[in-house]
Amino acid sequence: MGHKVSPLAPAEMPELPPLDGVRMRVAEAGIRYKGRKDVLLALLDPGTTVAGVLTRSRCPSAPVEWCRDKLAGGKARALVVNSGNANAFTGMRGREAVEKTAEVAAGCAADEVFLASTGVIGEPLDPAPFERVLGEMASTAEAGGFSDAAAAIMTTDTFPKRATANVDLGGTKVTINGIAKGAGMIAPDMATMLGFLFTDAPIAAPVLQSLLNRAVRGTFNAITVDGDTSTSDTVLLFATGKAAERGVAVIDDIKDARLKKFRKALIRVMKTLAQMIVRDGEGATKFVTVEVTGARNGRAARHIAMAIANSPLVKTAIAGQDANWGRVVMAVGKAGQEADRDKLAIWFGDIRVAVDGERDPTYDEAQVSAYMKSPEILLRVELGLGEGKARVWTCDLTHDYISINADYRS
Amino acid sequence: MGHKVSPLAPAEMPELPPLDGVRMRVAEAGIRYKGRKDVLLALLDPGTTVAGVLTRSRCPSAPVEWCRDKLAGGKARALVVNSGNANAFTGMRGREAVEKTAEVAAGCAADEVFLASTGVIGEPLDPAPFERVLGEMASTAEAGGFSDAAAAIMTTDTFPKRATANVDLGGTKVTINGIAKGAGMIAPDMATMLGFLFTDAPIAAPVLQSLLNRAVRGTFNAITVDGDTSTSDTVLLFATGKAAERGVAVIDDIKDARLKKFRKALIRVMKTLAQMIVRDGEGATKFVTVEVTGARNGRAARHIAMAIANSPLVKTAIAGQDANWGRVVMAVGKAGQEADRDKLAIWFGDIRVAVDGERDPTYDEAQVSAYMKSPEILLRVELGLGEGKARVWTCDLTHDYISINADYRS
Repeated sequence: MGHKVSPLAPAEMPELPPLDGVRMRVAEAGIRYKGRKDVLLALLDPGTTVAGVLTRSRCPSAPVEWCRDKLAGGKARALVVNSGNANAFTGMRGREAVEKTAEVAAGCAADEVFLASTGVIGEPLDPAPFERVLGEMASTAEAGGFSDAAAAIMTTDTFPKRATANVDLGGTKVTINGIAKGAGMIAPDMATMLGFLFTDAPIAAPVLQSLLNRAVRGTFNAITVDGDTSTSDTVLLFATGKAAERGVAVIDDIKDARLKKFRKALIRVMKTLAQMIVRDGEGATKFVTVEVTGARNGRAARHIAMAIANSPLVKTAIAGQDANWGRVVMAVGKAGQEADRDKLAIWFGDIRVAVDGERDPTYDEAQVSAYMKSPEILLRVELGLGEGKARVWTCDLTHDYISINADYRS
Repeated sequence: MGHKVSPLAPAEMPELPPLDGVRMRVAEAGIRYKGRKDVLLALLDPGTTVAGVLTRSRCPSAPVEWCRDKLAGGKARALVVNSGNANAFTGMRGREAVEKTAEVAAGCAADEVFLASTGVIGEPLDPAPFERVLGEMASTAEAGGFSDAAAAIMTTDTFPKRATANVDLGGTKVTINGIAKGAGMIAPDMATMLGFLFTDAPIAAPVLQSLLNRAVRGTFNAITVDGDTSTSDTVLLFATGKAAERGVAVIDDIKDARLKKFRKALIRVMKTLAQMIVRDGEGATKFVTVEVTGARNGRAARHIAMAIANSPLVKTAIAGQDANWGRVVMAVGKAGQEADRDKLAIWFGDIRVAVDGERDPTYDEAQVSAYMKSPEILLRVELGLGEGKARVWTCDLTHDYISINADYRS
């Protein structure tokens, strides 16, 4: 906390409109941070469906295990999020804390309460502070409140993350609101951080899950800050179905034609939030897009893109505004995927720096160095082997990353 | 260059004795560094056998490709190493530079000349400076010279790396000398940096290769500084066979009983050099041993150990002298190997900090914090699943790593 706002923070952040069927409240439970809101309660009207993607960590937090279990039911009435303590690696007491919190949360079946925690790992989480505040929160929750919610779930974040979209769903306007948090311990192939999405569209739980699974691939699973994976990563998508009252028929088939626009809007909201997490990457001064094309297949392209995006040497070079494309070659080489050095081409922005296995004949160090001063860097690699492609986002690795993480607990 | 000597440098560094059949010379070719020796020529007597382990990078340097090709012959007459330019990703010109250098090197068949280059990737390497100096070097090469050799191959290293051992080979003393370089772009599962080993023992090339393959596993392939893999990693083991003149019969069977002691001594020399590389890890202030036991098998143990050793969050916590064992849980969880949170136990040194899926009941923050101030940290994880174990070495991740790598080329 107390770090200054990332220089990569978006210039504008939308206010999120209230969403039918969602009431929110934040409170100060004093779990770790003093003098700030650290608990979010979202109440969801009856009929709300839910989908989720959770961390693939083999040592997940107690709330992650709880959510994984409850997602099978497909129904949600409340979401409780706390920052300051992850309730991870807290053994039986962690499970008990989760159960207790779910019970007191919302005056509904505990099975329909979803929980997420973020913060320090291994500290037992005392459920008493929740018991104290949750009753009052439930009785005073109000429509709207997404901005307060986005702020309450922050840990080392330097700015809150919000995104929204409207979609024409068969002639009726529905809304997607999203909030997220995350700045470190961010890596691919799992839900990566906390992200909560809400819509008033009436969508059956299995369809919602299918939509979410496909949408995370190119969004929350296509970002990396440090290649580390949290025990607590959670993305939940809630659909209150309230738009049904405005005449929207329930969508219970993934092939429903009305989903086309909805899917696009959902991906747009998730991509915006995911990119904000990279823009708030701990210590970040550069927003880096890594594009790999011409790989043998999409999976290989993704592996190579992530090897580049996670390489400490590539990331420190970008921090130093150094067009050290040799380190990109190194990262391609170490990815363990098929690559032919002599077919490789590399661009920084529009400038081709390497081609046919050696430095571009027209290479101009001054030109590339000027480009590297930009806060937004595009790094493109063409492998010349096939049609596989991937795009991921990351940030540079700076002194501030070290400062933030060498004294997080102290 | 010019960084002060690592605080983890060994207090003592052995002088290496001359070794029968090896003559050396270093020179200043001015490839990148000014005012220092940057080329090493080692001349090897007729009959010298050779084994090698090379980077698994898919974009290897021109010298690596050359060595891989020539190792098939099993014979060596010369080794040429230059620092300052890796001759990697230099296309056809890179190959030509290698061929030219090998031709002028030693007045022997080019096929028996081994080459290694280290330094910047992607800069064309002009062979002319070699042509200028190699003739003179060959005619003035002398017995001994290992100390000068170890210094000439350094790049960002802050101290030269040397190790030696004597072995009783069936009643006759033979010697193993080793030198190495490396401080960054150090990662497992490939030869990792430059390491050159010399012995006067008479060992046939296939036996030598088999010895080397097994010895790298627990030594050069069990270290990591930043998880990045060089395009140039090379370990070569030369056996001049000169001890045969002192009555040692040639060893041409891997089952030869005399190899038992030799193998141990070789591993000891290689482990010493490998650990020195970690001790000279860019910006390192802590030497970290990661031990994983109780994994389902050795491969799983190694994956988990490397996930811990490569985690930026674990490494920054150690830099901050912070006993943040929650990040160790995180790294175990992300390794993708079988793990059962509730069977996990974690030690820092002799202090058990976590057991049975939660913080140790006797956990004492002050005690662990005191231990974290040590320059040598042992981090032990017991998985409770099987007999698999692994031990790897790494260092912490500090501000100086960023400083060194954000402006390496500038």
